[in-house]
Amino acid sequence: MALTLYHNDMSVCAQKVRLALAEKGLDYESKHLNLRAGDQKHPDYLKLNPNGYVPTLVHDGFVVCESTVICEYIDDAFPNPPLKPADARGKARMRGFTKFIDAAIFPATGVVSMSIAFHHQYAPEVHAKMEAARPGWLANFRNLQKGTENPAFPNSIKRLDKMLADMEAALSGHGKPWLVGDAYSLADVGNAPYVTRLDHLKFLDRMIAKRPKTAAWYERMKARPAYQDALVEWFNPTYLPLMEEKGNEAWPKVQALLAA
Amino acid sequence: MALTLYHNDMSVCAQKVRLALAEKGLDYESKHLNLRAGDQKHPDYLKLNPNGYVPTLVHDGFVVCESTVICEYIDDAFPNPPLKPADARGKARMRGFTKFIDAAIFPATGVVSMSIAFHHQYAPEVHAKMEAARPGWLANFRNLQKGTENPAFPNSIKRLDKMLADMEAALSGHGKPWLVGDAYSLADVGNAPYVTRLDHLKFLDRMIAKRPKTAAWYERMKARPAYQDALVEWFNPTYLPLMEEKGNEAWPKVQALLAA
Repeated sequence: MALTLYHNDMSVCAQKVRLALAEKGLDYESKHLNLRAGDQKHPDYLKLNPNGYVPTLVHDGFVVCESTVICEYIDDAFPNPPLKPADARGKARMRGFTKFIDAAIFPATGVVSMSIAFHHQYAPEVHAKMEAARPGWLANFRNLQKGTENPAFPNSIKRLDKMLADMEAALSGHGKPWLVGDAYSLADVGNAPYVTRLDHLKFLDRMIAKRPKTAAWYERMKARPAYQDALVEWFNPTYLPLMEEKGNEAWPKVQALLAA
Repeated sequence: MALTLYHNDMSVCAQKVRLALAEKGLDYESKHLNLRAGDQKHPDYLKLNPNGYVPTLVHDGFVVCESTVICEYIDDAFPNPPLKPADARGKARMRGFTKFIDAAIFPATGVVSMSIAFHHQYAPEVHAKMEAARPGWLANFRNLQKGTENPAFPNSIKRLDKMLADMEAALSGHGKPWLVGDAYSLADVGNAPYVTRLDHLKFLDRMIAKRPKTAAWYERMKARPAYQDALVEWFNPTYLPLMEEKGNEAWPKVQALLAA
């Protein structure tokens, strides 16, 4: 049995898949892509993943793209320990979370992370390459460079605040440790990277100050060995100080947007 | 056992869920919403579905939102006949289709359908109500009124052409009757309303003229009793002539965009 993962250290979608693999105790061959250099648009990679995203999982020659599909695949192909609740209602609650990660939380996180911190990492010589691979990239990049003044920023940070509100409501509603109840599931796996990103940007403590259930959930998540292996071990030491510095600078504006 | 479906006759997402229910032979209480009148933004409905979308399924008091999540739930709660392949690879292939319905095909269909035909159905007195319920609705509506000149139209119609190309590639690749192989699945259920919409707009025959596998798939789909019950029986007789007339008018421009 051979697993190969094409991924990136700090990509939220890659973090999610590494976490699912780690929870199953699965080893894999690591193929790390440099997204800032545009590795994900290399013709060889596009043969595996035509959209040019990370991650891609290859299992004995079978290629799976899209992190949510990959996580479901990992649980279907390697059922123990399970990462889906046993019952239909639990699975639906779980997919209620993973659906909105894809539909809203992922794009909102891209806007927030790039506007605050990551746009600083794209060297000018990369811009033309990115624009060629993804027409419209440069126009969007100019907005990202506006930081919290990016027109897309207010709705994006509010959507991430809603993610935390939804987590708090779910955890308070059932009083159980994980998002869909007693069963740790792909809902927890899915949300973990997004909560972590807000932590790295130094927004999280402020945003969960009045959300004790979510704060406790995050402590439980960080205590899992799989979280250590799949996320912490891969944290990029050049990214963390950038996110912390730029996030702290932006917080007063972010706070005002959230209070509005 | 009680099932209640909040839905709309011509909504692609509702068609998808009705088709899954019909394939399982499940009866349900029908609650039909008038989307043009904004029923989906009524406070009572928002308690069930906070985003104000159709459909919503209620099963013995358990509320499920989001059509892809609902379809998975129907198959989990009522396993026979199965609408998911038995093996992990088949399920991943199936979710490769349903993922892109949510991420790209649904929004592209909204742009195409509204730009060509449905914007004609919104009476001026409804505009303010829609804008109040969904800020930004009116600015978007002004673009929809531009028809094929809507800035979002070219990429949207090209994405639907890619849907057909992907179907043709999958069907040609394995030579089997359904999208993921021998097993009729939620991939077929999911794509059926979108192919049907192109048919109603009179684009489909022209777009699949050189895609014989997809044309044969559509004939097989239309021959299923569940398709008759879930889609054809609900076709709205005031919508079909509008879509046909406006679609035929728009075709020369659509053809030029697809050839570009």
